[in-house]
Amino acid sequence: MSTSLLEQLIEALRVLPGVGQKSAQRMAYHLLERQREGGLRLSATLAQAMENVRHCVRCRDFSETDLCAICASPARDPSLLCAVETPADRLAIEQATGYRGLYFVLQGRLSPLDGIGPRELGLDQFAQRLDEGEVRELIVATNPTVEGEATAHYLAQIARARGVRPSRLAHGVPLGGELEYVDRGTLQHAFGSRLEIKD
Amino acid sequence: MSTSLLEQLIEALRVLPGVGQKSAQRMAYHLLERQREGGLRLSATLAQAMENVRHCVRCRDFSETDLCAICASPARDPSLLCAVETPADRLAIEQATGYRGLYFVLQGRLSPLDGIGPRELGLDQFAQRLDEGEVRELIVATNPTVEGEATAHYLAQIARARGVRPSRLAHGVPLGGELEYVDRGTLQHAFGSRLEIKD
Repeated sequence: MSTSLLEQLIEALRVLPGVGQKSAQRMAYHLLERQREGGLRLSATLAQAMENVRHCVRCRDFSETDLCAICASPARDPSLLCAVETPADRLAIEQATGYRGLYFVLQGRLSPLDGIGPRELGLDQFAQRLDEGEVRELIVATNPTVEGEATAHYLAQIARARGVRPSRLAHGVPLGGELEYVDRGTLQHAFGSRLEIKD
Repeated sequence: MSTSLLEQLIEALRVLPGVGQKSAQRMAYHLLERQREGGLRLSATLAQAMENVRHCVRCRDFSETDLCAICASPARDPSLLCAVETPADRLAIEQATGYRGLYFVLQGRLSPLDGIGPRELGLDQFAQRLDEGEVRELIVATNPTVEGEATAHYLAQIARARGVRPSRLAHGVPLGGELEYVDRGTLQHAFGSRLEIKD
């Protein structure tokens, strides 16, 4: 017996991250029972996106045009450049902060064991960008992991060598949390980097 | 600014059950970064399934042909009929048990407040099926909820009126669980319906 369309659909849905056999079944049945139109719309958008979304030639973020909307915008301040690991990080910063500068998306972090070096992160392109002389401050917003920190260190070196001031996101106790539940490393760091309370 | 393809994709993914803004973002980025081919395959299968999967004319389960594979199979015993609420229930029984009879998928349960009555569950078709005289036992496998029990009662009446013996799944303590964590209702039922231990 050949596999049915339903089984093929369940199998195909498992390509989504975090979706196993049971979730895929639930999704397939939900679409067939209640969301045929939504399913068709998803199918069309998915095909379009998979075929047309590529990388911005300037910041390496996802874009369907050569230059992404942010890089192409005249309203953004070209003297500020923020380096992030992934498009999702870029989106999070864009949604949470009022940042009006530009971005550089590494699409990864330095990780020699996985074969990810400066070339894979487009760091020659990054250095070239700083060489152009427009950028005055580099905001390094890599993740606070070991690899992210190593990447941050590397980027800061490149910036300093070109007279660009590197900065990084503040680390410390997250807002709205309770000290009791903050992990040790963060608490130790926040304690060591305590700031004077000014009038 | 018109919405980008990426934003459209994130929006379209939210049609899936249990997928909110954050999961949709994660899925979109995952597909774009690592699974373009899987995404295209999903798109194609999705369109095919949404357009071609309909209901089996005999058991009301999903099927891409008039008669589903189970109804069409000469190896199944036509004297046994199992009534389930959803295709997912049918699949669960098919995967877990060695049941070799046929099914009837109600596609719901009696729920007058939601406007779901005997007509919506195809119970005239169900009665006709029993009238044909081939079915000897009706196994009612509706969910053990108030509405599922009401539906089970109703189905059993239809069966008895036609000389078909109705049966239902055993209720009790699930295998592999601990008594301490079984809910009160189930424990009370299992206690009341205790069985004699035979040699």
